[in-house]
Amino acid sequence: MADTTLHSGTISGDLLIAGHAERGTGGVLRGVDASSGAALEPGFGGASKAQLDAACAAAWEAFDAYRETGLEQRAAFLEHIAGNILELGDALIDRCVAETGLPRPRIEGERARTAGQLRLFAGVLRDGGFLDLRIDPAQPDRKPLPRVDLRLRNIAIGPVAVFGASNFPLAFSVAGGDTASALAAGCPVIVKAHEAHPGTSELVGGAIAEAVSACGLPGGVFSLIFAEDRAIAQALVADPRIKAVGFTGSRAGGLALMKIAQERHEPIPVYAEMSSINPVILFEGALAERAAAIAPAFAAALSMGAGQFCTNPGLILAIDGPGLDRFLGAAAEAVAALPGAGMLTPGIHAAYDRATASLAAHSQVATLARGKTGGTYACQAALFSTTAVDFLAHRTLQEEVFGAASLVVRCADIGSLHKVIEALEGQLTVSLHLAESDIENARLLMPLLERKVGRILAGGFGTGVEVGHAMVHGGPYPATSDGRSTSVGSLAIHRFLRPVSYQDLPQALLPEALHDGNPLALPRLLDGKAAAG
Amino acid sequence: MADTTLHSGTISGDLLIAGHAERGTGGVLRGVDASSGAALEPGFGGASKAQLDAACAAAWEAFDAYRETGLEQRAAFLEHIAGNILELGDALIDRCVAETGLPRPRIEGERARTAGQLRLFAGVLRDGGFLDLRIDPAQPDRKPLPRVDLRLRNIAIGPVAVFGASNFPLAFSVAGGDTASALAAGCPVIVKAHEAHPGTSELVGGAIAEAVSACGLPGGVFSLIFAEDRAIAQALVADPRIKAVGFTGSRAGGLALMKIAQERHEPIPVYAEMSSINPVILFEGALAERAAAIAPAFAAALSMGAGQFCTNPGLILAIDGPGLDRFLGAAAEAVAALPGAGMLTPGIHAAYDRATASLAAHSQVATLARGKTGGTYACQAALFSTTAVDFLAHRTLQEEVFGAASLVVRCADIGSLHKVIEALEGQLTVSLHLAESDIENARLLMPLLERKVGRILAGGFGTGVEVGHAMVHGGPYPATSDGRSTSVGSLAIHRFLRPVSYQDLPQALLPEALHDGNPLALPRLLDGKAAAG
Repeated sequence: MADTTLHSGTISGDLLIAGHAERGTGGVLRGVDASSGAALEPGFGGASKAQLDAACAAAWEAFDAYRETGLEQRAAFLEHIAGNILELGDALIDRCVAETGLPRPRIEGERARTAGQLRLFAGVLRDGGFLDLRIDPAQPDRKPLPRVDLRLRNIAIGPVAVFGASNFPLAFSVAGGDTASALAAGCPVIVKAHEAHPGTSELVGGAIAEAVSACGLPGGVFSLIFAEDRAIAQALVADPRIKAVGFTGSRAGGLALMKIAQERHEPIPVYAEMSSINPVILFEGALAERAAAIAPAFAAALSMGAGQFCTNPGLILAIDGPGLDRFLGAAAEAVAALPGAGMLTPGIHAAYDRATASLAAHSQVATLARGKTGGTYACQAALFSTTAVDFLAHRTLQEEVFGAASLVVRCADIGSLHKVIEALEGQLTVSLHLAESDIENARLLMPLLERKVGRILAGGFGTGVEVGHAMVHGGPYPATSDGRSTSVGSLAIHRFLRPVSYQDLPQALLPEALHDGNPLALPRLLDGKAAAG
Repeated sequence: MADTTLHSGTISGDLLIAGHAERGTGGVLRGVDASSGAALEPGFGGASKAQLDAACAAAWEAFDAYRETGLEQRAAFLEHIAGNILELGDALIDRCVAETGLPRPRIEGERARTAGQLRLFAGVLRDGGFLDLRIDPAQPDRKPLPRVDLRLRNIAIGPVAVFGASNFPLAFSVAGGDTASALAAGCPVIVKAHEAHPGTSELVGGAIAEAVSACGLPGGVFSLIFAEDRAIAQALVADPRIKAVGFTGSRAGGLALMKIAQERHEPIPVYAEMSSINPVILFEGALAERAAAIAPAFAAALSMGAGQFCTNPGLILAIDGPGLDRFLGAAAEAVAALPGAGMLTPGIHAAYDRATASLAAHSQVATLARGKTGGTYACQAALFSTTAVDFLAHRTLQEEVFGAASLVVRCADIGSLHKVIEALEGQLTVSLHLAESDIENARLLMPLLERKVGRILAGGFGTGVEVGHAMVHGGPYPATSDGRSTSVGSLAIHRFLRPVSYQDLPQALLPEALHDGNPLALPRLLDGKAAAG
């Protein structure tokens, strides 16, 4: 029946528990047409506690077998999911556009990224470097004590709970980055669908479930649940069979999950991506050289996806002067011309309106420009400004506004700019706009920036997160709950792995990847040095 | 003055704050002769809140400069520390023996291990692989969108608080594994000395401080504090300038630090190694073949260092039968012959006596043997037994007894053995004793064992932790607070690193390790593939 869902593109409103479609008995939730606020058919049954328990039991049951599947088998599985998602065709795109209000080309691009992520991890699996295989051979004649034979590999951490994100209905939801990296690591996954796009979630869930079945894997490798009751989501994180959590969303939501995870008998890691205002630093030379050109590029980045990106440029830092004045004039003009763009949900729209109204009413904040209004749930872009002194005096001005709003902080001099940056919380990105004459000032800032963010970029904006090997989409708290990792790119697989060491074991008990003679021809370290395959 | 301490081997009782000796003004504590319980001279001044604050400020101040020192400079610094520790000669050994009651050859061996660890990390630095350098070059002509230039490296996480361990006065204390890996990563370190060996701590602290000065590093790279008041240790973990914590000790102590770290405005990782009973599985074939030979080896491992090892074999699992009876007879004989051995502190001795008395009085536990008594604070070894059914019914039987005590769990059959293992909490190690005929039974157990422990070994016991590249000294909670890492071996450096990505930055702003042309000749991944230096 997972198969039927896949090929027909029909949406049943059922849960997918370990390969079986099943009506959720814990209340009903519905998708909403983002442009009109009208409820979409069908209703989705929320999971009951017993249904959640069944999903956890199946994931646990599948874990040992799944984590020992061959690298090629797991790679082919990920590729099969990618193929299935593309095969869903317009049925997926249409539903996703309806549920999110995002433009069709954006959703098509996100679908390509989602497939690309799955294929990237297939490549990571075939490469095998992520296993971090190490062998320190025995030295029976070492004095004063002989040395034992030690071999190490990474293994999967256990079943992972993934919380779909509102703003990336494909690339950070059911088959998104967290799911792809966890499945690649060898972890069964239980996804809690985001209530903003349940139909999209069911279609993609069906694509995964079909791949599980077609690849001969245990059904418990994947389950998809809807939760009408917040207690179900909390129970998922608290379940002792869940060993890690991936989450993208609000700071309050992430903190709540972190608390549950810490209070378990066995605390587990939560990888929560929470809030970031992504400072943009406009250096004096760059402003002198091209203030008028930076402004429209900024407005375009600000308004992309109605500003609903975790890497949205929410803060502009610059030193007062004619260059900044020119930029502000041009930016105000560009922002004022921005059309209203539909937001993901009525709730997100309401929160955006509250936050911008609060900034507009703030005694130390000036409104430089508002964009055009639009449909009922459209985001009206906003550009505000304040001074460094006031920014430092009012910590709430650092709070993320989810949507196309940005705050300019005018600094008196470079010392004041440093102080503002030092006062910032952890961020996903910082963007530098530089001329040749700014290099020395930027160089002095680098240590401070490295301490504050996960990615430092020049000449652009943080939006547009390349999926590759050198990407870090992460950053110090509260940008994420764990700045030691990334949620985008091949490095993300390490979030779901832990090392195990084998000492003096007979070959028959060692994993094949660590056998003498390297039968799987994988990269290994021999006494800490790279050994030929 | 750090220099004077080093070369004279005299002990002043002073704190070492960023290279300066300074009398602690927060109360006085004293070392104790472990064999007599008599207080040793001199008194050590505990740090005040202001002195702690000065250490944190200096560490923060030193951080940016220290983390950007060259790999060779940092490697030479670690080697310099190792040399200084050896140069302390008998002054260090004598004081350490007095404070811990551990035999002189053990302390000498531990000193060699401590120097070896520092040198291992010097090698890790020169190799450079830990930086995980990655470059995904720009593809300006890619369709539909050009690809940006992305480069990644690991940077140090920030100043680290290290809590010295009672049972490894050298290898897991002031210049122990946590300090060595944190310094290697580029993190300044503040050590809170364990109150059981303050004199040893001061001598080793002086060795580090002299190396900091000799290598031209900022003084804040290292501070050593004594804490008479527990609130000072807590304030160290709570200080916003501290970004990670290394701890080896009791479960209660580790949990308390985890709680403080989680409740900070910015939560930070705590790497706490807490408790483990290190199951030993005696398979039937092995017992049939050599029960009598395993028994004395077990007794030797049990009593090494008076059993005060985190890898001490505290639990024996085997299937009932004549083989097990033979083992128990021989083991009881070997344990009964064990001499009393001095314990680290009167407090540890008292806790050991309470725990063994409680086991002896347990209605479902039989005492198979007690070792010989000894001096006032000597550990009297103990061997207990119970059945699988009773072990499963009484969770407290899983609690670690710190000292030379072990509990045999007699299992009716292989199913019962599985159930006992499944009920165990996370462990550092499991030891398998096997004959050829046991391989198949052991193979079936492997997935379960991998889920429970950090290191699986055959034919020996967990004591004796080899310091190398393939070692994992860690394991699922509560063996450690974070099973994704190790506290021993080269992999430990990753606990104190986080990745940063650089996008489209001009060469002048990139760290040299990521410059075009690879001027530092370091290992790098190009588009995810190993590139030649």
